[in-house]
Amino acid sequence: MNQITTIKLNAPYLIFLGEVTDAMSAKTGAGLVQWCPEKVAGQLRTHADSVDLGVPDMTVEQAVAAGAKSLVIGVALVGGEINRQWAEIINQAAASGLDIVSGLHTPLGDVPGLVETAANSGIRLINVRRAPENLPVGNGKKRSGKRVLMVGTDCAVGKKYTALALTKALNEAGVQATFRATGQTGMMIAGEGIPIDSVKSDFISGAAELISPGNDTAHWDVIEGQGSLFNPSYAGVSLGLLHGSQPDAIVLCHDASRQIVSSCADYVLPAIDECIDLHLRCARLTNPAVICIGVSVNTSGLPADQRDTYLHELSLKIGLPCVDPLVEECELLVQQLNQLNSV
Amino acid sequence: MNQITTIKLNAPYLIFLGEVTDAMSAKTGAGLVQWCPEKVAGQLRTHADSVDLGVPDMTVEQAVAAGAKSLVIGVALVGGEINRQWAEIINQAAASGLDIVSGLHTPLGDVPGLVETAANSGIRLINVRRAPENLPVGNGKKRSGKRVLMVGTDCAVGKKYTALALTKALNEAGVQATFRATGQTGMMIAGEGIPIDSVKSDFISGAAELISPGNDTAHWDVIEGQGSLFNPSYAGVSLGLLHGSQPDAIVLCHDASRQIVSSCADYVLPAIDECIDLHLRCARLTNPAVICIGVSVNTSGLPADQRDTYLHELSLKIGLPCVDPLVEECELLVQQLNQLNSV
Repeated sequence: MNQITTIKLNAPYLIFLGEVTDAMSAKTGAGLVQWCPEKVAGQLRTHADSVDLGVPDMTVEQAVAAGAKSLVIGVALVGGEINRQWAEIINQAAASGLDIVSGLHTPLGDVPGLVETAANSGIRLINVRRAPENLPVGNGKKRSGKRVLMVGTDCAVGKKYTALALTKALNEAGVQATFRATGQTGMMIAGEGIPIDSVKSDFISGAAELISPGNDTAHWDVIEGQGSLFNPSYAGVSLGLLHGSQPDAIVLCHDASRQIVSSCADYVLPAIDECIDLHLRCARLTNPAVICIGVSVNTSGLPADQRDTYLHELSLKIGLPCVDPLVEECELLVQQLNQLNSV
Repeated sequence: MNQITTIKLNAPYLIFLGEVTDAMSAKTGAGLVQWCPEKVAGQLRTHADSVDLGVPDMTVEQAVAAGAKSLVIGVALVGGEINRQWAEIINQAAASGLDIVSGLHTPLGDVPGLVETAANSGIRLINVRRAPENLPVGNGKKRSGKRVLMVGTDCAVGKKYTALALTKALNEAGVQATFRATGQTGMMIAGEGIPIDSVKSDFISGAAELISPGNDTAHWDVIEGQGSLFNPSYAGVSLGLLHGSQPDAIVLCHDASRQIVSSCADYVLPAIDECIDLHLRCARLTNPAVICIGVSVNTSGLPADQRDTYLHELSLKIGLPCVDPLVEECELLVQQLNQLNSV
């Protein structure tokens, strides 16, 4: 039986942008350039006015010559489809020996000719939305190393961004730390991971255990969170991830302008202190020593002159550091984790 | 787009028992005879000493003549495989117009010739371990009707049994009530359901919402539970099911002889009151009025002369009715639900 692992991607990447002209549709590619520039060989644009990520333009041949290992679809069209006009270039990349990596809804196997091309050239077609088969059931066994998990008052409140910013800040402070991805864009940035929301529900915590394996005692895994225990659509994902991650620390992520649960219009967002309390209570099952080290708030929806006041008042109310990693460093969170490391 | 529903089975059933001689391996078939005798046309045994469920022996031809609609595999061999020697009879049943229903690990599509036979005769191959595709995301919207969900201190503590016994007791008391299945054996008994542990984790609560749809105001859905919020392997399933079920009431199920979590040897079982408290706290997200109406205890692992004392002392300690549905009626639980109905 093969060893079961996370999905692992081969860098460097050639980022495919096609004919897309709006920056929003190219945010996957932009995220790669922002968070893992060392993995990016270049970009492939099919038109002169395609989005420009500021990295070298390359043809497939040039990328292969430069050592690229994967063509990563860096754009998402409305509906998540793979444009059939892209099929020729994707087939060419596969024939040239590049793995093809996609986070779109359309499976790569649906791209005309691509399955045959991949079989002939021996490259992998990697749909990062799809969980690996044969994941283990969670066993709850204590692992070495330290873990901090992003949790949230809702979906899409900045958990991935916070995890990436905190990992960067830890590394800059000389702390061993690795970003651990649980969603498709995070996986492309990390170069590995499991899309935990597509795992069969019996295996959520087992997948989470694989995502942050045992490590050096002083090493921090900084784990991308998903959903919220207070989101009636996705709380099961959040709880399995919380248990399997066995976090020593959690960071609560919140969007200051969010009032209503994103997927459920009948539900108001939980209070910050209540949300921290329930996440800690549940997390204690697999790590009785877990603490919350702070709140990461996306304040971009507030008037600029109210942001500092909001963070300061929230911090006084709950007695924890509250930061917006988009506008300041994660220094306060790094300090908290360093205190845990010295225990 | 087709309407998305639970998996629906066609009764009456012909229960296939093959050459199996031990009762434990035939417990799926025995459960059908115990809990839904009205759905059972007969049994198909291939040897004189095969397990006998006490229902009429029938060939495929006799079952079809008697109006049977499905051949249900009523046995499970070690490893969950489908015996290749069964292929001939299963193909014959499919060719004769019976749907084939299996809860085994081996998909029915792997039975030699069966996919072709099914295509030719137009019958369905139903793997009740496999969740339907295209399930919806949970929306958290309040539904009409009343719901009681079995929750547990662990897996395999009697949640299905309690739900079935409670449904029967409610019906006998003249209360409209329907057993709602979330696992494979329960689905065969109910004739429909979704195997919630095989649903992709983004869709757990959405599947739970489908399992117990809106109903008459006085009608009770009695929902089979799965896992436990205190089981580090499966708590995600339990939370999604809890949220999507929107229960008005929960019954905590427990095995009096269980000390350690079944799938995780490092974990002791939670205290009963703590377990009720966390399940209620989480359940309030989608139904703020939820209450716990009692505890269902499997006392079969206790000495016979200690069972009453155990139930009595537990009941005094937590202030709720505690019953063992294997040895007594569910009358106390029925009374609790009737009180809720009169509110």
